[in-house]
Order: sequence, then C-alpha cells, then structure tokens
Amino acid sequence: MAASLTCSASHLASLFGPNTTDAAAAADYICGQFSVVSDKFVDTGYAVDTTYLLFSSYLVFSMQLGFAMLCAGSVRAKNTMNIMLTNVLDAAAGGLFYYLFGFAFAFGAPSNGFIGKHFFGLKDIPSSSVDYSFFLYQWAFAIAAAGITSGSIAERTQFVAYLVYSSFLTGFVYPVVSHWFWSADGWASAGKTGDLLFGSGVIDFAGSGVVHMVGGVAGLYGALIEGPRIGRFDHSGRAVALRGHSASLVVLGTFLLWFGWYGFNPGSFTRILHAYSSGSYYGQWSAVGRTAVTTTLAGCTAALTTLFGRRLLSGHWNVTDVCNGLLGGFAAITAGCSVVEPWAAVICGFVAALVLIGCNRIAEKAKFDDPLEATQLHGGCGAWGVIFTGLFATKEYVREVYAGRPDAAYGLLMGGGGRLLAAQVVEVVVIVGWVSATMGPLFWILRKLKLLRISEEDELAGMDLTRHGGFAYAYEDE
Amino acid sequence: MAASLTCSASHLASLFGPNTTDAAAAADYICGQFSVVSDKFVDTGYAVDTTYLLFSSYLVFSMQLGFAMLCAGSVRAKNTMNIMLTNVLDAAAGGLFYYLFGFAFAFGAPSNGFIGKHFFGLKDIPSSSVDYSFFLYQWAFAIAAAGITSGSIAERTQFVAYLVYSSFLTGFVYPVVSHWFWSADGWASAGKTGDLLFGSGVIDFAGSGVVHMVGGVAGLYGALIEGPRIGRFDHSGRAVALRGHSASLVVLGTFLLWFGWYGFNPGSFTRILHAYSSGSYYGQWSAVGRTAVTTTLAGCTAALTTLFGRRLLSGHWNVTDVCNGLLGGFAAITAGCSVVEPWAAVICGFVAALVLIGCNRIAEKAKFDDPLEATQLHGGCGAWGVIFTGLFATKEYVREVYAGRPDAAYGLLMGGGGRLLAAQVVEVVVIVGWVSATMGPLFWILRKLKLLRISEEDELAGMDLTRHGGFAYAYEDE
Amino acid sequence: MAASLTCSASHLASLFGPNTTDAAAAADYICGQFSVVSDKFVDTGYAVDTTYLLFSSYLVFSMQLGFAMLCAGSVRAKNTMNIMLTNVLDAAAGGLFYYLFGFAFAFGAPSNGFIGKHFFGLKDIPSSSVDYSFFLYQWAFAIAAAGITSGSIAERTQFVAYLVYSSFLTGFVYPVVSHWFWSADGWASAGKTGDLLFGSGVIDFAGSGVVHMVGGVAGLYGALIEGPRIGRFDHSGRAVALRGHSASLVVLGTFLLWFGWYGFNPGSFTRILHAYSSGSYYGQWSAVGRTAVTTTLAGCTAALTTLFGRRLLSGHWNVTDVCNGLLGGFAAITAGCSVVEPWAAVICGFVAALVLIGCNRIAEKAKFDDPLEATQLHGGCGAWGVIFTGLFATKEYVREVYAGRPDAAYGLLMGGGGRLLAAQVVEVVVIVGWVSATMGPLFWILRKLKLLRISEEDELAGMDLTRHGGFAYAYEDE
Repeated sequence: MAASLTCSASHLASLFGPNTTDAAAAADYICGQFSVVSDKFVDTGYAVDTTYLLFSSYLVFSMQLGFAMLCAGSVRAKNTMNIMLTNVLDAAAGGLFYYLFGFAFAFGAPSNGFIGKHFFGLKDIPSSSVDYSFFLYQWAFAIAAAGITSGSIAERTQFVAYLVYSSFLTGFVYPVVSHWFWSADGWASAGKTGDLLFGSGVIDFAGSGVVHMVGGVAGLYGALIEGPRIGRFDHSGRAVALRGHSASLVVLGTFLLWFGWYGFNPGSFTRILHAYSSGSYYGQWSAVGRTAVTTTLAGCTAALTTLFGRRLLSGHWNVTDVCNGLLGGFAAITAGCSVVEPWAAVICGFVAALVLIGCNRIAEKAKFDDPLEATQLHGGCGAWGVIFTGLFATKEYVREVYAGRPDAAYGLLMGGGGRLLAAQVVEVVVIVGWVSATMGPLFWILRKLKLLRISEEDELAGMDLTRHGGFAYAYEDE
Repeated sequence: MAASLTCSASHLASLFGPNTTDAAAAADYICGQFSVVSDKFVDTGYAVDTTYLLFSSYLVFSMQLGFAMLCAGSVRAKNTMNIMLTNVLDAAAGGLFYYLFGFAFAFGAPSNGFIGKHFFGLKDIPSSSVDYSFFLYQWAFAIAAAGITSGSIAERTQFVAYLVYSSFLTGFVYPVVSHWFWSADGWASAGKTGDLLFGSGVIDFAGSGVVHMVGGVAGLYGALIEGPRIGRFDHSGRAVALRGHSASLVVLGTFLLWFGWYGFNPGSFTRILHAYSSGSYYGQWSAVGRTAVTTTLAGCTAALTTLFGRRLLSGHWNVTDVCNGLLGGFAAITAGCSVVEPWAAVICGFVAALVLIGCNRIAEKAKFDDPLEATQLHGGCGAWGVIFTGLFATKEYVREVYAGRPDAAYGLLMGGGGRLLAAQVVEVVVIVGWVSATMGPLFWILRKLKLLRISEEDELAGMDLTRHGGFAYAYEDE
Repeated sequence: MAASLTCSASHLASLFGPNTTDAAAAADYICGQFSVVSDKFVDTGYAVDTTYLLFSSYLVFSMQLGFAMLCAGSVRAKNTMNIMLTNVLDAAAGGLFYYLFGFAFAFGAPSNGFIGKHFFGLKDIPSSSVDYSFFLYQWAFAIAAAGITSGSIAERTQFVAYLVYSSFLTGFVYPVVSHWFWSADGWASAGKTGDLLFGSGVIDFAGSGVVHMVGGVAGLYGALIEGPRIGRFDHSGRAVALRGHSASLVVLGTFLLWFGWYGFNPGSFTRILHAYSSGSYYGQWSAVGRTAVTTTLAGCTAALTTLFGRRLLSGHWNVTDVCNGLLGGFAAITAGCSVVEPWAAVICGFVAALVLIGCNRIAEKAKFDDPLEATQLHGGCGAWGVIFTGLFATKEYVREVYAGRPDAAYGLLMGGGGRLLAAQVVEVVVIVGWVSATMGPLFWILRKLKLLRISEEDELAGMDLTRHGGFAYAYEDE
C-alpha cells in the first residue's frame, strides 16, 4: 500500500514554534501545496487507470470479432450468414440489455448477495466507485458469454430462439453469476466485505467459471436439447466430421481471440497504478505483466500438447485442432492467471489440452454435437481452470491481488490448505446448477413451442438461403 | 480546472520571518522542491496523454483495414484487387500528402479562418501546442474521408481518376473543412479564440460532418456523375442487387471499424489527464469513458433497429444490412458523442437507422448506385448526427468538453435555445456547398477528359483481370 | 534528464536555524513528505511505462496474425493449412522456448558480450531492471523472426523440418544476435556499458538487422538448399508466377503488419515517461511520436514508389506488389526510425522500394524461389535500413535516444563522420556470417537426413491433403 501524502499543518506549525513569524500560516501554506500535489496524484491515477481499462476493453471487444470469424470458419458455407449475424447481435443486443439492466444486476451496489439492484440505465454513474469505463469493460465480457453458446447450437437453430436465449443469458443469467463471484456484495466473492465463503471466497479472476463455464454449460443444454446436426452421426452411429468451410477464418478468429485475451486477463485488474510497496519496482504493473505471461504460457503449452496429442490420435498435424487446444489453455488459465507462477501456467495448459481431448472423446461417444466444441472447450477447460486455481494459487500473489485479506486461503499444492479448493469446487457446482436451472428449461420450452430447431429442409439447404437473404459468397460471377 | 501548484517563495519567507536563520533560502529551497514536483507532473501529463493519443491513432488507423475488408466484401469478386488497392493507397498517398501540406492546411497556426499555413512537411513541429502524435492522429482521420468516397464509385472507376480525386480530397478539400471546424483559427470552430459563430460555434466533436459528410457528399458526386454500374437497374428500371462476393469480409470489416471507432470518438479528446475539478473521481477520463459508451449504444441501437426494420421490409434477417445500420449509428453519434447522455445516444442510433433506410429508398427510386451505400450512410447519417447534436447536447458536458466557453450554447431540446442548432445547420449547408463546389467540378472534368469511367468491356470482365494483374482468388489449382 | 527530487533535511534544518522550535524535526517532516511524493512518481512511472510497453507488446503480437494471413494468402490454396499451422506454432513453441532459455540467452545479465546466462525460466524476474512486460515484448519480437523464415520455405518443406529450424532459430540463433546488439552486455550494443564498437556501437533500434535480416538470411539458406517449387521455372528456365490463392488475405495481413509495426518501432523505446529536459513539452513521448511518423512515411513512400515502379515494369497496378513494397519500407526504417528526421524516412522508403525491386530481379535471374519474397524483403530492405541509419542518424536524436553517450557517433551524411556507418556495416556482415554459420548447416543437415523437402507427389497434391487433414476450404457442400 502506498504511503499516504498527509501533511499535518498543526504538527508542522508546532515544530516551527513561536519564534516563527506566522508558524500556522507557514505550515498551512506548505501543507496546502502538498494537498494540491495529492490531488494531482489522484487525477493522474484516474487518467492512467482509465486509459489502461479502456484499451483493455477495446481488446476484449475485439474478441467478438474473433468469435465471429472462428464461428464462421467452423460452420459450413451455407450457414455463414446466420452465424455471423448471431455474433453481431450478441454485441448489439448485449449493448442495450446490459445498459438497461444487465450491469445493474451484476454490479448494482449496495445490494444483496444474490443480485444487484442499482445502476439501471447507468443511473448514478459515474460515482467514486464505478465509472463508465468499468461498464464498458463488463459489457465486453457479457457479450463473450453469449458468443460461446452460439457456437454450440450452430447450424440448426431458429433465429428467433437465438434472440430469446441470447437476451436472457446476457441480461440475466450471466449478470447474476458475475454478481456472485465478482461484485463487492456477491456471496462467494473473494473481494466482498464481510465473511468470506469458507473464509476464502472464490478466486475466479477473469472468469474461467463466470464467463467460460456459463457459456459452455448453456451451450451444453442447447446442443443436448436440439440434438446433433443431420449427418453428424451416420446410420451405424459413427461420427462424421462436418468440416467448417474455411480454416483461414478459424486461424484468423483464433489469433484475434489470443490478441483480445490480453485485455480479458491482465485487464481484469481494472487498474494498473497501484503500488504494493510504494517507490519500488514491484507493484500491480508487475502483476499485470505476469498475468499476460501466464496467459501466454498456458495457451502455448496447450497448443503444443494438442499438436502432438492429436498427431498421435489422428495421424496428421491439424491446425484447427491446435487452435482449439490453444483456446482451451486460455479458457483454463483465466481463473488463476493473476495468482499463479509462470511454471504453474505451463501445467495448467498441458492439462487443459488433455481435458479438451478427453471431453471431445466423451462427446463423440455420447453422440453429442457441438459444432464449435464450445461445451468441451469453455465448459470443460473452464472447470479445470477453476480447480487448478484452488491447487496452484500462491500465498504472496493472492494477498497482493486480493488485498485486505491478510489470512486469505491459497492453493492446496502450495501449502495453503483446502479452503480455497473447497470454494472453487463450490463455484463449479453452483455454476452448473444455476445454468442448468435457468437455461435448461428455457431451451426445453423453446423446443416445446417449436421455436428451437429449424426444419429438415432448411437445415439441408442451409439457413443463409432460406432465412438470411442468400449465400455468403459469390466467387463466380452470375 | 486543476488547482495550480505555485509556491511563492517570497510569501513563504515572510511567514517564516526574521527569526528564521535564512528565511529566504529556506522558502526558496522548499518552493524549489515544489517546482521540481510541478515539472514532473508536466512530464507525466505529456507521457500519459501521448500514450492515450498514439494508441487512439493506431485504432483509427485500423479502420483503414476495416474499410478495405468492408469494401472488398461488398464488391463482386472480379473487382476485389481494384478496390483493395485504392484502400491501401488512401493510406499511403494520404501519408505523403498530409505530411507535405494537408496537415498544414488543416492545423497550421497562426493563420486565418479559412485555411492553415504553417507546418508544411512538419516544419516547426514539435512545439508546445502540436506534437507528432497529433499529426499521426489527424492523418488517420484524413485517410478515412477518402476511404468513404472510394466505396461510392467502386467497380466502374478508372484507377487514374482514383489517384486524382483521392489526392485532392485528402490534400486539400478535407483539410480545409477540418480547419474550419476543428482548428483554433477556424471560422466556425467551437474551440476558436475570439467570437464564435452565433456565439456558439459548431460542435462536431469527432466529425459526423467533417469526416463522414465530406466523404459521403464527395461520393454522391462521384456516383452521380459516373452513373450506375451496368446491370444495377434492369431494362424496366427496377433495381437489381449486385451482391458483394463475401459476407465474411463485410462482417470482418464492420467489426474492425467498430473497434477503430473507439479511437475515433473517445480519442478525439486528444488527452485524458485533464481534471475538471482536481482530486475528484470525475474528470476528462470519465468523459472519455462516457464517449465510448454513447458510441457503443448508438451503434447497437441502430443495428437492432435495422435488423427488425429490414426484416419487415425484405422478409429476412440480413447480416450485411445490420452491418450497415450499425455503421450508420456510429457515423451519426460521432458529432455529439462527447456531449450527450447515454439515453440520447439510443435515440440517435434509432433515428440513424431510419435515416439510412429512407436514404436507401430514395437512392433506389432515383436510380442512384453507390455500391457501399456510402453516400446514404456517411452523408445521410452524418448529417443527422450534426443536427442531433444541436438538439441533445447538454449544458454540463458542453461546458466541460469545450472549456473556456462559460456561456456556451447547447441543445435545443435540453433547454439550450436554438443557437447551437443554427450553427449545426450552417455546418451541414456549408459542407454540402464546399464539397459540391470542389469535388463536383473535379469529377465532371475527369469525365470530360474521359478519365473517369472504365470501358464497358472492362466493367463486364472486371477490373482485376484487365488492369490489376489478375483475379484475386485461386481456390482451384490451375 | 529530469531534475531530481532530493530534499536534504539537514540543509533545510540549517536554514531554519536555532530559533525554530525543532528545526530538525520540521525539516525532516517536510522532506519526508517530499520523499513520499518522490515514491509516488516512481510508482506512476512504472504504471505508465508498463501500460505503454504491454500494449505495444500486444500490437507486436498482432503481427503474428498479420504474418499468418499474409503467408496464407500468398501460397496456393492447397498449402494453406500447412503455412497457417507454422505461424501458430511460431507463436506457441516460441512462447515456451523463449521462456525456458531464449530470453536468458538474449538478455540474461550480468553476462559476457556473446550470450546471456541468467533468467532461464524467468528466474529472478521481476527485478529493478527487468519486468515481465519486457519479457513479453521481446517474446513477440522473437516469434517474428521465425515467421519471416517460414515464408521463404513455404509450399515444399516437411513439417518436422519446420519444427526443428523454428525452435533453433527462436531459441538460440536469434537470441544471440539480439544479445549482441540490444543487451547491456552485447559486444556491439550502442547501449552497453564500457567501450563501444568504434566508439559508437551499432544503432539498430527496432531490428532491421536483428529481426528482419536474421529472418531473411535464414530464409535465404532454407530456400537455396531446398530449391524452387515444382513449376516455378519452366523448362526453358523462365519464371512462372505461382500466384497466391487470396489477395484479400494478403491485404488483410499487410494492414495488420502495418498496425502492429506501431508496437514494433515506437514500442522499442520500452518506456515513454522519460523527460529529456523536465517540465518541457519535448521529451521521450515526442520521440515516440516521431518514430511512429517516420515509420509511417517510410512505408507510404515505399508503397507509392512500388506502385509506379511495378506499373512501369509490368504494365498493371498490382496490389500485392504494393503490399510488399510497403512492408519493405517498414523493414528498412526499423533500424533508424527513432534517430532520423521525417524527411529522411521518405528517402529510406524510396530506396527500399528500389532495393526490393532489384533483389526480386536478381532472385528471378538466379532461379531463386522464395514464395513470400521474404529473403529479398526482410533481408535486402533490412540491410539497406541498417546502412541508411549510418548515413542519416542525427546528432541530437542519437544523443537523446541513446542517453549517456555524449560523444556518440551519428550519420555520415549528417556530418557525424564514418564511425557509426562502419559499425552498421559490421552489423550487416556479422549477421550474414552468424546466420550463415548456424542456419546454413542446419538446413543442409536436414536435407542430408531427408527431413527437409516433401516428396514430389505431396508437393503436387498439396500438403494440406496429404499431411494436415484436408483442404482448407469447402465453399461447395459435399
């Protein structure tokens, strides 16, 4: 914590003493100057931190473009217009809904542990605790969750169903979860005031659970209730690859997500000008950099593990598999990125790749069809990331990042006991439960109302032709 | 305005008085320290603001990539090489011309109200008022205007004509307009010294008029004088859609423009470390964040309005229409983004979508062919945005953002009277007039010289094959 | 150099004198406050500079996406999956290797002039001299070098050979070169402590030699030892263009590289809050902006020169040629971007375009086949850039940017004598020698082991089909 700049004029006046012509005025004058200096540091802090947060927000926003390209490239050409429209609408509808009430549900304070209840339509913002830049940052996160789910139900979902689930997820289901784990009032938040869950609280720094599992589990229900795409499993029940139409778009999208993840993870500090011990080279700026490094290493390791793992399993070097492995590593490190050592991030990425390969095996055996592997990737690797944090979070980093918790629990394997791990397990269970209880029924009702799945004819012809005004490409002139 | 850090050594010395061993030296010593502190704040301010402005510039530059992809995707495959070359050249030729004289025409000070006359070839830069980063930022704006126009005349324009109009627009027409409304000497600038237009001046914060209308009106003349592409209207006069060749590129370009708009609008503050009241959480950093939020909300609302509006009109959910609607919302909010409330931005976006739909209807009836809808989008929505600002600008925000104008006029509907609105109307009229008087004759002369439109054979075959070395794609091996 | 904030309590106490009640305590109190202020400036500096460096790192990272798209678009469709995989792996394998030992070889200090020997696995980081953000920045540079080389050997190289050379280059060859020219211990570094080479040291600010020549010369050996692709030269020995499959991807990649270059060149200052003379508008922030401007102007000029030059030579306006010219201008200005005037950058770009055209002529005559022109572009223009710096570096800028060298040599044509130019020539010679001595034998051994080139059947069919799980695109449904 930075030494405070508090000049006591009365104390200084007493030191000057009675022989000084006007000791009180001299002391006042000097302390008044220091007061101006102090104010200027406050201004500077806001400017630096807002710059940091806004540009981080823009990076997170660029992930929406990444999702759009990744999704587009991963579906067949005939459904490209459809999936891209859903990605544009995630951002657009998310913008309005999150402005009107999503942000209020998530961060409206003061409130209760379950749901926020202020800041509807940005009322009372800015305040000393919440500025516009924080809203923008959180909005960019909210639309990511819906983007994950749209991948799971690609190529067979009615557009109306998409509008319904996407609004519900961005406007209610996701904000409530982020309230629980991230807001100052959330019942399981590691940053809350008052008693912490297991005396620890959950550490899900940038949202392996809050964002990725929520999106992935929602996708699980969507994909389960819709069933697989026509042709995904042949008559004998064997899986048939329905290859996406453009690997270039997949790689483009993956790199954009990587780029944007530097806003997602390091950006989650929300400010960078925060000294752990003033005047030293080591402070939050350093922790921010370390977070960028752990993020990078987890993704890189997962990519390499996937490369060789899939080569062993399939016999070829496949770039789209490597892309998914990379993203799985990122989804996993997201929870613990700020509180683990770089070497632990390598372990995180290695295991994430195995988790993804394993989940994909299970999905295939279970005849579960998720065109983007979003359930496996964001749900499976996200869950691993939450648990990983309970194992590898270090004492020092937890105390720095979650300041004001001198007795904070930390990772089991780092000697911190099981309290943090227990809290992390609770997060996994609770997210699965909450999303199951909300998104499951929603998709089921949509199905009952015949609003969920498109007709067989539409699916075979492709949605672009039947619903979206035509095919996405025209390389040959008519 | 921040309290100043001015330590008076003589005053302090008098307070210490004659009993202090060397009161003058003591006071000097203390005030000398404060002077060092003051200098360090100056340094810090330059570093923070330059960081902010440079990264904003890079974002604005990324819009050039967005334009390139949007344009490429919106034309037929046979003209892809052509349109992308024009986009690369906007940036490249714009770089040289703007360096040599464009920037001088725009911001060369001191000068007269009509045109700047210093800083040719960056002479006398940096100075205390203008640094390299400001040049870079303005260059990125200048090339955007030319990029808009290239869309309007796509698929039928000789490359030489492109080189001519682009140089003229970036090097002269646009800089003059930006001088009028943005420079400290401009006759209609809200930030000028001396008497303001209608005691108000024009508020076109990031350029709905200065950039978007200039590009759009120039495009109007180009497209009008060239006439529609072959086949755009059939023998009975009915419009025929000449679909672009790649919706994926359209979506990619649109998202990149969205990303870059966060440099365009919030970046137009050009600095972020500026306190409105020192030591408080509320300052320019907050206004910057609010500007990012209004920008987002206007675009999102316009996208959603377009989605449902076009669905009613055309019967399908069309992603490229939604993209154009989104961009129309951005073009509209650009003038007033910094001085309106978030709820007003929602209104701005809603109306912008209707304006775009209306303009497109008129264009079709008038057999006007603009392949990118650039005239309608940047011209029409841009004009709406200028007017919108005259209606919804708030008193408080105008006074903060345009400091030094304690009696500044503000929006008619916010109780600010009609002076600002009158100034805004003058901007619309003057931009239409100026661009008509310069670009209209230019395109007309090019046509007379037979340098404007390509031959019918070239148009049917596509320019890539006949002029640019071949087709852009080769998915099948030869 | 900024005036230091050093308050001497004993001096101040002596000025207060014996009549002050407690002069020592009063002075201590006041100087204690200044000490807190001083610490806060230290904190602020770290936060600002880290923000600057991290976002620059993200920009440099985005160049990897640029390379991927540029490479993908420049090869035939049948090898798209292959080349994109190499680009993803550059980043991923580079991440692990550079973390484990590459960074240690490059910047591990204290060490000798040849190779670094600390910081393996980021041990002892952060320290007062090196933070995580610096590692991240340098990692993004390291993977760029390998990316360059992958272009030279595209469409005919076994994937295993790729893994071998890429690891060797990123993990050893490149780090050693960056140690020589950039680390505080490097024998030819302009920033080293102790005697400088020719009393000058080499100025290769952002790596025309260190990055671009290393990548380009490595590519030269790879492409030479592999020989040209089948069909690149016909039976009579005439060159046949093997056109890339997507000009849109080429333009996308080029613009992304342009975007990222703003992290590469201006970012190489690694910090922005550094006053040359405290309290003045002119400081490192200004030099950073100037560097962005010189970079822009060199690229723009090279693009325009290429446009007209190639039009004269080939008869058409070719966008992919212009893209390569642009990149050649960037590769050339990279060495001197921080120490030359903007007008000199225009010269740099003009000559770079001619160098590229000349190198391409020579390559064609020599039947040398580099599918991306990477050898010519990064090797040829990079070498020109190193020499250019020896001619045009200005006295003032060299002394500001390489502080602590009051007698620093500067450009020959700027009146600085030949010492800097001599050092620059040594850099060119030494880089060619070192890369020849390491990468040459490596490629030769790989060839002898039959691990280098793919079979003729694979080359004709395309690697995607035979090695990478299938064709990259499926526009028609099966």
